[in-house]
Amino acid sequence: MPRLDFWYDYGSTYSYPAVMRAGPLAEAAGVELVWKPLLLGPIFAKTGLTTSPYKANPVKGAYMWRDLERLCVKFALPFKQPPEFPQNGLLAARVALVLDPTSVPDFTRAVLAFEFGEGGVISDDAPIREILTALGHDADALVERAQAEDNKLALRGQVERAASLGIFGAPTFIAEDGEMFWGHDRLEDALLWAAVPPEGEAA
Amino acid sequence: MPRLDFWYDYGSTYSYPAVMRAGPLAEAAGVELVWKPLLLGPIFAKTGLTTSPYKANPVKGAYMWRDLERLCVKFALPFKQPPEFPQNGLLAARVALVLDPTSVPDFTRAVLAFEFGEGGVISDDAPIREILTALGHDADALVERAQAEDNKLALRGQVERAASLGIFGAPTFIAEDGEMFWGHDRLEDALLWAAVPPEGEAA
Repeated sequence: MPRLDFWYDYGSTYSYPAVMRAGPLAEAAGVELVWKPLLLGPIFAKTGLTTSPYKANPVKGAYMWRDLERLCVKFALPFKQPPEFPQNGLLAARVALVLDPTSVPDFTRAVLAFEFGEGGVISDDAPIREILTALGHDADALVERAQAEDNKLALRGQVERAASLGIFGAPTFIAEDGEMFWGHDRLEDALLWAAVPPEGEAA
Repeated sequence: MPRLDFWYDYGSTYSYPAVMRAGPLAEAAGVELVWKPLLLGPIFAKTGLTTSPYKANPVKGAYMWRDLERLCVKFALPFKQPPEFPQNGLLAARVALVLDPTSVPDFTRAVLAFEFGEGGVISDDAPIREILTALGHDADALVERAQAEDNKLALRGQVERAASLGIFGAPTFIAEDGEMFWGHDRLEDALLWAAVPPEGEAA
């Protein structure tokens, strides 16, 4: 089965519709999604930005929220703007790295639906623990492993890998031949590329 | 017939597919497009940018060219990256303001097809004059009127108007009820909104 790397950030607004929609669409396309959390903060920092581009440009930021709201209507997703933005997705990303990979999609959907569907705040430990418990995981054990030094380094390495691949935003999709697609708007194109690479470059 | 304001820039890469596709799609949707050239330079300058965001962030810029190339394949448009970017679309925008409005779509398609379909340079007078002549216009007379002081002020006013509407990039589509859509990726959504405003807010 062809694979598509799915890079996302737990604080990224457009990662929300991508995370909610990618699973079933990938299944329909016969593509295996490889879920790869990253942190946009360090990636933005490489270009001199100390916060989200939507904070740096408030006019663009205001548009983004309206655009996200319309997308949620279009794709029948709940939407509520959280009181804080950008939120710190560090703990969620660290937890995703210690979860069994088969548990990552449900965990990720639950975190982003809480954040942008209910307007929840995820920077705290508490909601992440609650989500893990609701999904039947041992929250204490997972959070402890997530915060261990080796896992902190693992996430840092994954973010460095993302930057070295030329990733500058999220969500980003990368096919097995290296073809990169940026943004929720490119989800369908990326799946099509992964399923049927152009000019017979079969994966 | 419902109207949709279509703001674009003669040097903007994603304005190219929008300009080439908007006319027939608007006709099919029963929407009247109002073509409104702007200059992104002064709009970017308001956020402290002295050049295109794609120059300010070369990693994002490299991706943009690849993405544009793929979009052109998808929509069967010719594509050739011009040797310069961003190009100065000042003369083309000034000419568009003095043309009969019914002549603006053909002129605009010709300029952007030359720039991004053939990799042409439009900063010069010569190609703009050639395009005008090929379309049956009096190039000398139009360029003279385009460069007159009152027309320079008219374009400046139009750019100020764009900024006051919250426009931060191009292409941007604005429906009669003020709803704004940014980017070639939102062309279809904008036309649908203009044709059938949600919740019965008929135009």
